[in-house]
Amino acid sequence: MTTSNRQDLKEKVIAQADQSVETLYRYLRLTSVSAQHLEIPETVQFVADLLKSVGGEVKILDDLGGNPVIYGFFAAGSKGNANKTLLFYNHYDVQPPDPLDEWESEPFEPSLKDGILYARGTADNKGSLMLRLAAIKALEQADGLPCNIKFLIEGEEEIGSPNLPRYLKEYAELFKADACIWEFGSKDAQERVELYAGIKGSAYFELSTKSASIDIHSSLAAVIDNPAWRLVQALASMKNQNNDITVEGFFDEIEEPDEALMEIVRALPFDKSGLTGPFGLTRPLITEARGENPRDALMLYPTMTICGMVSGYIGEGAKTVLPKEAKVKIDCRMVPGQTGEHLLACFERHLARHGFSDVKVELIESQRAYRSDITDPFLHLVKKTAEEAYGSEAVLYPNSPGTGPMYQFNECLQLPIVSTGVGWAESKAHAPNESIRMKDYADGCLHMAYLLTDFAAE
Amino acid sequence: MTTSNRQDLKEKVIAQADQSVETLYRYLRLTSVSAQHLEIPETVQFVADLLKSVGGEVKILDDLGGNPVIYGFFAAGSKGNANKTLLFYNHYDVQPPDPLDEWESEPFEPSLKDGILYARGTADNKGSLMLRLAAIKALEQADGLPCNIKFLIEGEEEIGSPNLPRYLKEYAELFKADACIWEFGSKDAQERVELYAGIKGSAYFELSTKSASIDIHSSLAAVIDNPAWRLVQALASMKNQNNDITVEGFFDEIEEPDEALMEIVRALPFDKSGLTGPFGLTRPLITEARGENPRDALMLYPTMTICGMVSGYIGEGAKTVLPKEAKVKIDCRMVPGQTGEHLLACFERHLARHGFSDVKVELIESQRAYRSDITDPFLHLVKKTAEEAYGSEAVLYPNSPGTGPMYQFNECLQLPIVSTGVGWAESKAHAPNESIRMKDYADGCLHMAYLLTDFAAE
Repeated sequence: MTTSNRQDLKEKVIAQADQSVETLYRYLRLTSVSAQHLEIPETVQFVADLLKSVGGEVKILDDLGGNPVIYGFFAAGSKGNANKTLLFYNHYDVQPPDPLDEWESEPFEPSLKDGILYARGTADNKGSLMLRLAAIKALEQADGLPCNIKFLIEGEEEIGSPNLPRYLKEYAELFKADACIWEFGSKDAQERVELYAGIKGSAYFELSTKSASIDIHSSLAAVIDNPAWRLVQALASMKNQNNDITVEGFFDEIEEPDEALMEIVRALPFDKSGLTGPFGLTRPLITEARGENPRDALMLYPTMTICGMVSGYIGEGAKTVLPKEAKVKIDCRMVPGQTGEHLLACFERHLARHGFSDVKVELIESQRAYRSDITDPFLHLVKKTAEEAYGSEAVLYPNSPGTGPMYQFNECLQLPIVSTGVGWAESKAHAPNESIRMKDYADGCLHMAYLLTDFAAE
Repeated sequence: MTTSNRQDLKEKVIAQADQSVETLYRYLRLTSVSAQHLEIPETVQFVADLLKSVGGEVKILDDLGGNPVIYGFFAAGSKGNANKTLLFYNHYDVQPPDPLDEWESEPFEPSLKDGILYARGTADNKGSLMLRLAAIKALEQADGLPCNIKFLIEGEEEIGSPNLPRYLKEYAELFKADACIWEFGSKDAQERVELYAGIKGSAYFELSTKSASIDIHSSLAAVIDNPAWRLVQALASMKNQNNDITVEGFFDEIEEPDEALMEIVRALPFDKSGLTGPFGLTRPLITEARGENPRDALMLYPTMTICGMVSGYIGEGAKTVLPKEAKVKIDCRMVPGQTGEHLLACFERHLARHGFSDVKVELIESQRAYRSDITDPFLHLVKKTAEEAYGSEAVLYPNSPGTGPMYQFNECLQLPIVSTGVGWAESKAHAPNESIRMKDYADGCLHMAYLLTDFAAE
């Protein structure tokens, strides 16, 4: 592609990115919280119509249970390369918006302020879908689509994609492609574009203990055992004050990183202020207290996180009650080799061995970790076109600290995968006041247009 | 009083108890939750009108802060003993009704089924006030009031009576009396009437730790410290898996029980099924696991109870979030000698020493324990008249495992105190489906009529 072609494309992309914003607003207004089963059919219909409106062929797959998976197909134009196909992975579901009282605007009413667009789903993941479609529209208006394009847009990413593996297996032929662009990514606090060639896995557990049929007057606590104290003691036996995970067998399945990977990890940038600033952290990083490298931890260490915990009276003022039950939600981010099933067995054995057989464990969802082959040329094409489109450095991480169903994608489709998206350093995905910057939205759109063009020409 | 007088009084009492039920229903419909500041003025007005309707003189005391304290006075009749005054202590506030979904009827709409009346406040403490007033009405209709009667009805008992001590001190002369009947009591599972000559104290704490300004994506848990884990570890350092309280200094202030007290404690009945049955307990009693006597524990041991605990996402499904803060509510039932201020100092020192200076402790409310002189004749008069009225055994406990502002009453008024009330073994005070039996309501009313008669004649 000549420089003048590139310039012409850039103008068309910027115009299309701009035009697409009104549609993005409508998409963001849909409260598609998968954990709470909100507006899923409405959102599926919206996305299907959206793909069709850009010229896509659409199939809504819902025969294997769960929220529908949307397939989209855009054929290469007459001047394009019909032998190359790029697959985009997106999801139309979002995280629950709570705590609601910490939003400065309505979570499901987009609010634009100083070039920053606030709403649940802006960064994760509705913004990324919209800019990909805007890039397609711009390419269509330029020389036509340079290659075939497929979409897999699911609706259960935020609850761990429990049904997606079945769809991937059943429809592997339909989704077949030469490479895949994943759903998320951000610019860091130094304005570097972060690209990911893998993900960590996640196993989400609920632990609970119940010792009475009703809450009890706390004056009886001298004789009646308290499930909240039981759960506290059980949890304290699983991770110590130094943040060491002390569940026997937890680390058994981990594949040791090889020297090539370690070399890449050691070369990655790490900007502490990019973490501490946006979140207003008041404590030192865990890795500082432990004398560890935070890059190693983010790339290579599994975690065990209390995501939520509840027992008894949590309202205003004092209620002198002895709770009947106590519950905790735990998310374990896993590294390659680990499985949720093994961790479940470890938890059950640990609790039984430590005298907590009254504490029940349930594995709510689980996804394995995955890393693409870091030497694949596609990964470096994504990086090169990102640097061109954004006009700033891009960093290719072996994996994200986050999670997604990448392991299953590769099992069924066998293709290189890179993740990139429209976030920025303060996007606050999964938290109140989630946002994207409109400049990143336009640059991300341009990145996709350049990538598709160069991918087709390879 | 002759037997025929007694029979005449009994008939009048039963009629009055019956007639008072409609008014009790209206009282129960008032949502006077002190922890949530609900309908307090309306309830004060209702109670004041109620006292006046039975012929009482009323003062609403509100000059010293907090919810108003209601003073009521009924003068001895012309045939009565104007030299003797009995003081009744009641409270018009109730516990919060939640968890709401566990009520089988509306908490603030009385529901009568098989002789059992369900509503928040039936047992604790609206039923007891109503039956005392019904007894007064019956006595008025018989030979007139046998002695002077005073009421102290407060509105902050369920939040620890924070302002009552000031009112007691300021109005000691107004509330002066020869003896006091306290607000609560029950029949046990063996239909014995439980009377209490004292109470445990209570110190209510909130512990919290906050480490970020917003909830964070849990993928960052490899480097960012988690306040829920911090709180779990802090709590686990304060009480171990064997239910030993391990906070240094916690037991320092306790007055050792003397042999006379121990003798009474050893003779008390203990019926395990009366505890395990109503609450559907699935674990052994703490005292069984520790090889301790449950009577000793209920009478003599302090407690440390998690009443409520919350952090992060507690809604439906999975949310992969690293919480910004974690909180716990803790109730310590104290025995004579202990003070909330000392326990606060112990907690603060303990947390600092164990590396948890990020965990903040707040003392929300605190009341000291108290025991009346177990040899006082008034105590035995209450027991004797209870056995006559109920037609069953009564047991005088040195103290209740529960709490109330008895310590301050005695400090200001210096008088013997016994607690008795209208509860039964399954009253479920502070829990969903709180109830009383209408037969106990009538018997309790008769108990008060007999007690007032015999007290005046002493």
